[in-house]
Amino acid sequence: MDQICGHELRSVSLKLTVESSGIDKYPAKAHAQRVADTLKLSEGLIALAGKASELWQDSDMPVPFRQDRYFSYMTGCNEPDCYVTYDVGKDLLTLWIPPFSQKKAVWGGQGSTVQEALEKYDVDEVRYITVEKEQQREMPYFCRHVSNWFRPSELTGPHCKGSVGSVSCPETVTAVPLKQAIDICRVVKDEHEIELIRKANSISAKAHTAILKALPGLTSEAEVHAVYVGTCIAHQAREQAYQPIVGSGPNAATLHYATNNESFGDRQTLLIDAGAEWNCYASDVTRTMPLNAKNPGHWQSKEAEDIYALVEEVQESCIRMLKPGTSFLSVHIGAQAITLSGLLSLGILQGDFIDVWNAGTVRAFFPHGLGHHIGLECHDVSGEPRPSQSSSPQSKSSDFFSNLQPPCTEATPELVPGNVVTIEPGIYFNSANLKLYLESQTHAKFFNKEVLERYSDVGGVRIEDCILITKFGHENLTTAPKGAAALRIIREAASL
Amino acid sequence: MDQICGHELRSVSLKLTVESSGIDKYPAKAHAQRVADTLKLSEGLIALAGKASELWQDSDMPVPFRQDRYFSYMTGCNEPDCYVTYDVGKDLLTLWIPPFSQKKAVWGGQGSTVQEALEKYDVDEVRYITVEKEQQREMPYFCRHVSNWFRPSELTGPHCKGSVGSVSCPETVTAVPLKQAIDICRVVKDEHEIELIRKANSISAKAHTAILKALPGLTSEAEVHAVYVGTCIAHQAREQAYQPIVGSGPNAATLHYATNNESFGDRQTLLIDAGAEWNCYASDVTRTMPLNAKNPGHWQSKEAEDIYALVEEVQESCIRMLKPGTSFLSVHIGAQAITLSGLLSLGILQGDFIDVWNAGTVRAFFPHGLGHHIGLECHDVSGEPRPSQSSSPQSKSSDFFSNLQPPCTEATPELVPGNVVTIEPGIYFNSANLKLYLESQTHAKFFNKEVLERYSDVGGVRIEDCILITKFGHENLTTAPKGAAALRIIREAASL
Repeated sequence: MDQICGHELRSVSLKLTVESSGIDKYPAKAHAQRVADTLKLSEGLIALAGKASELWQDSDMPVPFRQDRYFSYMTGCNEPDCYVTYDVGKDLLTLWIPPFSQKKAVWGGQGSTVQEALEKYDVDEVRYITVEKEQQREMPYFCRHVSNWFRPSELTGPHCKGSVGSVSCPETVTAVPLKQAIDICRVVKDEHEIELIRKANSISAKAHTAILKALPGLTSEAEVHAVYVGTCIAHQAREQAYQPIVGSGPNAATLHYATNNESFGDRQTLLIDAGAEWNCYASDVTRTMPLNAKNPGHWQSKEAEDIYALVEEVQESCIRMLKPGTSFLSVHIGAQAITLSGLLSLGILQGDFIDVWNAGTVRAFFPHGLGHHIGLECHDVSGEPRPSQSSSPQSKSSDFFSNLQPPCTEATPELVPGNVVTIEPGIYFNSANLKLYLESQTHAKFFNKEVLERYSDVGGVRIEDCILITKFGHENLTTAPKGAAALRIIREAASL
Repeated sequence: MDQICGHELRSVSLKLTVESSGIDKYPAKAHAQRVADTLKLSEGLIALAGKASELWQDSDMPVPFRQDRYFSYMTGCNEPDCYVTYDVGKDLLTLWIPPFSQKKAVWGGQGSTVQEALEKYDVDEVRYITVEKEQQREMPYFCRHVSNWFRPSELTGPHCKGSVGSVSCPETVTAVPLKQAIDICRVVKDEHEIELIRKANSISAKAHTAILKALPGLTSEAEVHAVYVGTCIAHQAREQAYQPIVGSGPNAATLHYATNNESFGDRQTLLIDAGAEWNCYASDVTRTMPLNAKNPGHWQSKEAEDIYALVEEVQESCIRMLKPGTSFLSVHIGAQAITLSGLLSLGILQGDFIDVWNAGTVRAFFPHGLGHHIGLECHDVSGEPRPSQSSSPQSKSSDFFSNLQPPCTEATPELVPGNVVTIEPGIYFNSANLKLYLESQTHAKFFNKEVLERYSDVGGVRIEDCILITKFGHENLTTAPKGAAALRIIREAASL
């Protein structure tokens, strides 16, 4: 009993909290330790700023809040205006939160109190930020851009107050090593992160299933979008991992179509690329289905059925290739090869496989990478620096893969257990893109324009799942129905 | 025919376009002229930057796009990365848009071409921005902060190129007069703007009605939120004017509650404050309804019914007061007086009316202003500078109205035809706010704690409509059912 008093008591009760409910907490402490290990640090202080709340310019409306993902990784805290410090030597993870405000409590928007934050987050201590407004404004810049660690002795007193301006960082240190270390950690997901991605996928699956069931009664992209978003919100997923894409017919051929406001008319296909977010973790799911008012759940044309079957074959083949040690680039190349082979079989492309392959003509139909890592970002870090986006059919065949993003690059490391990647092959009849290829001397000869014309109404088909790399292979985290199972749901709904 | 050639021909065809489809166009040209008139300018150039597209830090995900409202007012253009110039002397309104990009056409996100923009927007000419990247980055700063007009001769050549760095502005001119002039114009809505607000309200009404119809089958705030957002999206309203508030029981007492994720349990009331946006114009609608699983469409308690009836009486009285010449502050004072009178009648407050009034105790239950202008912003400009928000019960009775925002201030001009304001009285049993008053020597004696306790489960009630000031009175633009009509819809739905 002697020891259970004052500060010690609080420490003891904290440990108990962690042990009793800690299993459900985001493993922030383990992440901080992983990052320090990756940096090979035995002492020093890692400091990161969370996203600050802000208003739109000349407006009193808030910019939608989206937590900084590096801060998320180190805290699991999704509240604005916070900071985190990790004292490596002391193994002490501290969350700094804005002070309690009576006004906020009445008007709403009040974040956690210290006690609430201690209960919610897997951190050692929580403190109110008490630095002056002027210094707070300096802190994000300080934490993000000037220094990623400094000696704990430079934190004077219980608060940051007075220390911000006086801290000197080792001259050789910038924020870059910290960012790289967190990237390396983030690319391999732990059990907790996998469960969050699984939960996001599970809600997306409910929403995609709701679309299949409602489809016979829907007449526009906006209605599909509404069913999707409504289902996610009803299941407590307020945030989407990205802006949903709901494209019918030709709109399905615009990769990032987001207008989602046209009527189906007599269009043949509907592409929905939409994934919910759960506790800042993304899902990314694409389904393509037949539009057919007369015969719901059946493709209007053999051409649409052909293209769906081909993309389905590509996706299944690629997923089968996934296991530890696989090079993602090789899977991407495989996807392009199967796609090309299929397009030649259908007669849309013509000529010798090797000739067409070397010209890179398949990119007229499949202009993007096969997939990407997914986690705190929809397009998650790959452990490599993110190159600038670029996609041009004018690049020479020697540049065939040069415009692709990680993990579709030669530099990308082989897959390891804990990676989660999307596999999202597609075939698109995008008139603007096809025009460039049809006008090119290199490519024009490989097209059978008459056959191409017959297929152009298909618009676009993409199928996308999130795949976890496991110790011995892979697991598909996306449970939204596709293929024959999806068609059955539409048909059953139509028969009710 | 001699005159119909070259540049003249283009001008003629433009005029025809404006005449044929111009009636549906946002009246950008008229707005530009109004702004110049307000500035008493006969020459000079007004320049404004639209909102630039941007990504979240360390992410490839875009920050949700929200057009700058001053730019909206001068163009009606809701596309990113644009600029507008208005040459007052030449009466020439020019929209500057980002150049066409092949990549964007394939991937999506391509904005209008010059021809498309000319057809969509009520401007005299549309030009591609061809300034260098480096200069583009300077332009927003230049346009927004350094100068609001400069002499047209300083625009060299057909493009801005080369002129940005060299422009010198009259030393006395800053962006402030332009902003103030646009504010003065924005506060009086024209026919087109009124129709946009009416349309936003009409979609909100559909969504609020959908909630009433669905309510007997719903069990949580999230489900209500889902029905609301789904209905808006299905009717093509992708954007909300503000984050929807769906609060049950005690959550209805947190003014800006936005978690929207709790189950109803046995709570008595449901408050929904949610308004769709239409072409950047806001609606703002609040409805409060009974939660009652056993007897849908009926209040669970006399207390809840009392409070709803009182807020309804306040709202109806206030709306009746609205006409040209009315001071909004006097309506706000009227709302507080009727509220206080009602709270005294119910026995929640006690004492002499004047004593309680002078103490300002009514703000324990009604801590906010009665309403605000609405238009391009939910909390739209009032023609006055926007003060910083503050609300503290500690302010002395002499400061009774000092913490209120326009138009609930003495400085606010009288209402004129074309103003659109919200009328949103409310009564809240917010424990954090009430605690402050109950602990205050000034206020505590006016409370009957026993009666207050009986009412605390009511949570909160607010009723809000958007009211247009017309030439001879007012028109309620909000068509969402309320009061007895709303209860009837719930009862009918429950009986199906």
